[in-house]
Amino acid sequence: MTRIRVLVTGGTFDKEYDELTGRLFFRDTHLPEMLRRGRCRLDVTLETVMMIDSLELDDGGRARIVERARASRETAIVVTHGTDTMVTTGGALAAAALDGKTIVLTGAMVPYAFGSSDGLFNLGSALSFVQVLPPGVYIAMNGQQFPWNAVRKNTDTGTFEGI
Amino acid sequence: MTRIRVLVTGGTFDKEYDELTGRLFFRDTHLPEMLRRGRCRLDVTLETVMMIDSLELDDGGRARIVERARASRETAIVVTHGTDTMVTTGGALAAAALDGKTIVLTGAMVPYAFGSSDGLFNLGSALSFVQVLPPGVYIAMNGQQFPWNAVRKNTDTGTFEGI
Amino acid sequence: MTRIRVLVTGGTFDKEYDELTGRLFFRDTHLPEMLRRGRCRLDVTLETVMMIDSLELDDGGRARIVERARASRETAIVVTHGTDTMVTTGGALAAAALDGKTIVLTGAMVPYAFGSSDGLFNLGSALSFVQVLPPGVYIAMNGQQFPWNAVRKNTDTGTFEGI
Amino acid sequence: MTRIRVLVTGGTFDKEYDELTGRLFFRDTHLPEMLRRGRCRLDVTLETVMMIDSLELDDGGRARIVERARASRETAIVVTHGTDTMVTTGGALAAAALDGKTIVLTGAMVPYAFGSSDGLFNLGSALSFVQVLPPGVYIAMNGQQFPWNAVRKNTDTGTFEGI
Repeated sequence: MTRIRVLVTGGTFDKEYDELTGRLFFRDTHLPEMLRRGRCRLDVTLETVMMIDSLELDDGGRARIVERARASRETAIVVTHGTDTMVTTGGALAAAALDGKTIVLTGAMVPYAFGSSDGLFNLGSALSFVQVLPPGVYIAMNGQQFPWNAVRKNTDTGTFEGI
Repeated sequence: MTRIRVLVTGGTFDKEYDELTGRLFFRDTHLPEMLRRGRCRLDVTLETVMMIDSLELDDGGRARIVERARASRETAIVVTHGTDTMVTTGGALAAAALDGKTIVLTGAMVPYAFGSSDGLFNLGSALSFVQVLPPGVYIAMNGQQFPWNAVRKNTDTGTFEGI
Repeated sequence: MTRIRVLVTGGTFDKEYDELTGRLFFRDTHLPEMLRRGRCRLDVTLETVMMIDSLELDDGGRARIVERARASRETAIVVTHGTDTMVTTGGALAAAALDGKTIVLTGAMVPYAFGSSDGLFNLGSALSFVQVLPPGVYIAMNGQQFPWNAVRKNTDTGTFEGI
Repeated sequence: MTRIRVLVTGGTFDKEYDELTGRLFFRDTHLPEMLRRGRCRLDVTLETVMMIDSLELDDGGRARIVERARASRETAIVVTHGTDTMVTTGGALAAAALDGKTIVLTGAMVPYAFGSSDGLFNLGSALSFVQVLPPGVYIAMNGQQFPWNAVRKNTDTGTFEGI
């Protein structure tokens, strides 16, 4: 069975509602609960790299994600990431030329903790693509997969589309 | 973009709770709602073949599923199916030798209508595998995929495992 | 603040889905989780008397519920109960002539564990009525309250109505 | 049966998540869906007065709420309201001396649209209290009810407490 590493970086995926302030914030990742709910039987190792909104992710943060992907002994890597700068991080990972590794970035438009989230669908999709796609860096959203440099987020529709 | 046909056959996936009788039953499929929630942008055609518990599926029913898969113009086909006899239907589809078609069967251990369902995860997984696997008949459950003749349902754990 | 005892007897309220058998069953009560979710700040003592479908409740079982209500130091008592024989148990409680006690029976048409349950609504309602109604035995369902002997369950609509 | 008017003013109760901006906003009220889910059989008339965060509610807005309560033919009135200034609006309603009317304000700490909301519990509670409390202005939160001038929101705990 393919061994998979999931690098958690935050994003809408993992946001929660703070009932005292009425704001969204990060606490722990929901990935363990999501894998349980999906009855996932894959050999998955979770690693929380950071918990931030991807709009606040800078070059230093991106370098840390690249470094953790490079250090991964697993060659199948899923990165959970905010959708706003997912493609930029895909570019940073590609520039690092991590030969032999299949890296799939995914995220969500609605926090998993809110009932109507697309997160579980996207996680099932990303974990599947990462097992079968050849080495490279990909975005998996909306049931689709794209090479990182052939996709953009359409901010009007909130979906990813090929370019 | 890959065009995908989803053949709906019922299964736990689509069961609902009848509050007047306290029993589970079938009404309409939840697939449209699930695809909306997953913000799915794939070119998917839905076709409801039947809505039954797979324990009640007989040879005649299986022949209908095979016939609908044969008639499908799409070469990528997902079949939503009860888990109890999913492998048997996989065998019937394989015996039909539908050359050039990639067929992925998936299902759920908990109805989608109940909060804790694995259905959305499995649907994301099956729709992803069907886009990239070579022609053949597969089971996609628990984040994994197996050729139909290399897998069984472990009824003690409720998970699928390779054989 | 009114001190309230909640006598848990099971009913649809507390049913769960057994994903291995596809049947409904009882495990632990969901009352603690429901009170947490309602951010309930009442002085509530929970007591699980039994966990059964009210169609299986016999005279012996009813006698136990009456006995626990009699033993309660709290004079405000909520009984969670299956809807099918809720009125019968109301009668047994009334026959016991527990002077000075306000007893409110409530339940649910859909299990709390399923997303679409009316349980949380009914619990909020029953806990409110029990604080303000005079001594007696009542049914609280559908946002309404009825004296136990002026109500019946309409099995066609699944709602309670005055008689 | 008591006829009840529900005046909707917004508040956390009715907030939704805008997946394009990542911000909370108001669209339509969730009250109809909540009443359906509670299988509510009360004679309820819904009236949306405004849809705003109660921190943005000014004297003019409060005057409109008072005016709608005064115009109500129903003498049992529930007001859904943000928790931050719920007590202030209670004061405005009390100052208007709407003799013979029982007015219960309620709200939620978590939006109904998010899975973990206390909204359904609070709605069941408020609709119950309004049927049985004598004329006056009350706050119903956390399963409790308080006269409007004997309660405050504890912003550290997010709960209401007597003073």
